[in-house]
Amino acid sequence: MRTAAVSGTIAASVPGAPRMNLILLTQADFVADDRVVLRDRRLTHMLEVHQPTAGDTLRVGMLNGEVGQGQLLSLDPLSAELAVRFNQAPPCALPMSLVLALPRPKMLKRTLQSIASMGVKDIWLINSYRVDKSYWGSPLLSEEAIQEQLMLGLEQAGDTVLPQVHLRKRFKPFVEDELPALAANKRALLAHPYNASPCPAPSTAPTLLAVGPEGGFIQYEVDKLIAAGLSPIHLGPRILRVETAVPVLLAKLFPVFA
Amino acid sequence: MRTAAVSGTIAASVPGAPRMNLILLTQADFVADDRVVLRDRRLTHMLEVHQPTAGDTLRVGMLNGEVGQGQLLSLDPLSAELAVRFNQAPPCALPMSLVLALPRPKMLKRTLQSIASMGVKDIWLINSYRVDKSYWGSPLLSEEAIQEQLMLGLEQAGDTVLPQVHLRKRFKPFVEDELPALAANKRALLAHPYNASPCPAPSTAPTLLAVGPEGGFIQYEVDKLIAAGLSPIHLGPRILRVETAVPVLLAKLFPVFA
Repeated sequence: MRTAAVSGTIAASVPGAPRMNLILLTQADFVADDRVVLRDRRLTHMLEVHQPTAGDTLRVGMLNGEVGQGQLLSLDPLSAELAVRFNQAPPCALPMSLVLALPRPKMLKRTLQSIASMGVKDIWLINSYRVDKSYWGSPLLSEEAIQEQLMLGLEQAGDTVLPQVHLRKRFKPFVEDELPALAANKRALLAHPYNASPCPAPSTAPTLLAVGPEGGFIQYEVDKLIAAGLSPIHLGPRILRVETAVPVLLAKLFPVFA
Repeated sequence: MRTAAVSGTIAASVPGAPRMNLILLTQADFVADDRVVLRDRRLTHMLEVHQPTAGDTLRVGMLNGEVGQGQLLSLDPLSAELAVRFNQAPPCALPMSLVLALPRPKMLKRTLQSIASMGVKDIWLINSYRVDKSYWGSPLLSEEAIQEQLMLGLEQAGDTVLPQVHLRKRFKPFVEDELPALAANKRALLAHPYNASPCPAPSTAPTLLAVGPEGGFIQYEVDKLIAAGLSPIHLGPRILRVETAVPVLLAKLFPVFA
């Protein structure tokens, strides 16, 4: 039986209960000024993973707003009700735009979660010779599906600010007409292991980073990206997969992961 | 029709063909001193992804030995024959032991590939309160299954040296009886976001790094790991999933990814 001393503590301090992710809230969740009711995957996650009890304090965040605390008022298989207050800014965003050749659908989900968790707020998914055409037809590219993966990444990291995702199905118009302005006055980099400089030191300078598909951008694309103002950088003698290379690149380029 | 000028080049330089991973060879592949015949997944990968033609030069590596070139002599749906020579050391290993709470099976595959691609050579998969007992029964923990994932990571990175993987199903005996000696005279670190120091600067110093399960080590485990000589470090205000945190940690701790 739980005692008063245990209820009211942050779930993370209860032995056995894993630290609970932030619960991301939107206006639609509110039933009063400081009161929310949850019935969707956030309820399921609570019931299946964390199993908090009434009185527990959980981390909450307002989508695109502040983070704070939610006291669990009631929890049953159909709904959870929390009293919430917000009192803290979310963690800082990375000052960057990430241009990424569209990954295959399975990888796209993980990549969106991972980069959202790291604080990337401006994401450009672009075509490339080695992006299979079928990827552009994936249901995972619907606005709702993308937002779901991004929200999972935000909840993991305790962030609230939804990244903007731009889809560009044609390489050449994007690189010729949009990229030069996006890259202007920024540290503009292309992760490409050939004829490249070492990855530069961490900096808070505004940055644009382009990352190719598995197998890399082809030479024509590399030439176009360089013409748009990007400089090739490498990560040493090992060629890493996109899912490994992106966290390594962000860790090298920005001073926040320490 | 391909001309003599095209055959004989590295596959990576052919527009459209993705840079081919290293083909990892073992003694069993050799039919003569400098001749190998492939019939397994390496053949399938060639046929389905890279489609090289006779005369092409492919990157090869001898398991636990040197890397070099293989000239494709013949390729058909049943076998590929290459003339091989070895002339270069594989990329440097990271001077570290990685102690990792056993990830869930799906994540284990990706994690083994990712850390093998980054050059980790000494891997300890250990139990923790938040490791589901069922994970220890996964067929992915067989020696063959582990080796397969590690080899995929090595091939990706152009490496040949197979990591050693140690399984420790009991937390306490490992941490009390083995970890203190493993951590002695090393930069011994525990990735843990609470009461922790910032991640230290890149160094080539011998390092031991422990990373917990999703949800983190529980306080009892943290106390035991600290008693064994490890110091908690964090990666800033964001809590990252293991698959994102490990590449970030390795990129921060070692100077080789630049």
